[in-house]
Amino acid sequence: MDLMEAIKGRRSIRKYKPDPVSEEVLRTILEAVRWSPSWANTQCWEVVVVKDQNVKSELAATLVKTNPALSSMAEAPLIIVLCGKKGVSGFKKGEAATVKGDWLMFDTGIAMQSLCLAAHELGLGTVIVGLFDHKKAEEILGVPQDREVVAITPLGYPAAEGVAPKRKEMSDFVFDEKYPVRK
Amino acid sequence: MDLMEAIKGRRSIRKYKPDPVSEEVLRTILEAVRWSPSWANTQCWEVVVVKDQNVKSELAATLVKTNPALSSMAEAPLIIVLCGKKGVSGFKKGEAATVKGDWLMFDTGIAMQSLCLAAHELGLGTVIVGLFDHKKAEEILGVPQDREVVAITPLGYPAAEGVAPKRKEMSDFVFDEKYPVRK
Repeated sequence: MDLMEAIKGRRSIRKYKPDPVSEEVLRTILEAVRWSPSWANTQCWEVVVVKDQNVKSELAATLVKTNPALSSMAEAPLIIVLCGKKGVSGFKKGEAATVKGDWLMFDTGIAMQSLCLAAHELGLGTVIVGLFDHKKAEEILGVPQDREVVAITPLGYPAAEGVAPKRKEMSDFVFDEKYPVRK
Repeated sequence: MDLMEAIKGRRSIRKYKPDPVSEEVLRTILEAVRWSPSWANTQCWEVVVVKDQNVKSELAATLVKTNPALSSMAEAPLIIVLCGKKGVSGFKKGEAATVKGDWLMFDTGIAMQSLCLAAHELGLGTVIVGLFDHKKAEEILGVPQDREVVAITPLGYPAAEGVAPKRKEMSDFVFDEKYPVRK
């Protein structure tokens, strides 16, 4: 699939078929994470691949009941949990190198986009879920103190197409040379 | 270009030709940002496109002198400054919806990967720079209080190829079902 086609065509998928995802397909998708760029090549991302129905149900229970992605968490054959190692991205000799502190959210954002695009190219759906109880998810997965859970996505073959939410116009978010002076 | 080829083949570029980037090419790259996914479709990203040599030099001066991307900032025909609107991504009714507070770093990370991949497909280079004086960059660009500068990249045609830094093995960052118990 052409790159721009993938970027423009990838949708959030909230209905999944139960069909399994082969190890080969999963590996290709994780390779996309592996080849993502990161702060000084620190590669702080870590991925937990959940197939166990009990663990999937436990993770689903960390979402608020109104989350439109809730049912997809148990439906999809896999859940991918994207985590980050703290204190490496954005750090230099153990100290935060910028006013932004830890850059793990930025680097895992990069990795998540790679993952979603690679999945889409292979005909699989994803939906990035950030609204859940992170502490509970960390307990469920036995995440060590120096790591944190960032975002979750189900991974599987779409049972229904996604809808493209409206995007801002280019002129709403692109500025020449400086920010426009607002009155 | 094939998507996986783009993800695996994109390198950080630190040497640029002075050749200009056409408006059409620039627009395609910014379309990749526009079509990125974001928290509840909040699209918090904003982009400042800097062509003015004086502004480019001012921005270059916000980098530490040892940054290997320093010379590329004045060399490249364009600098893209990726900013974020605060208090929208990760928020619900004005309150942070998760323990992570603002998700603008995550969403701008997603957008930056889209931008870097789209640029690479069109034969252009990028290098994501996060280590600079963010406050000074915000002053230079007149960034309003409710926005912040996140990362910068030069954008132009590569004058030298980049080198692929070594990646972790899959087994170093992918875990099945739960985090492994470390002794």
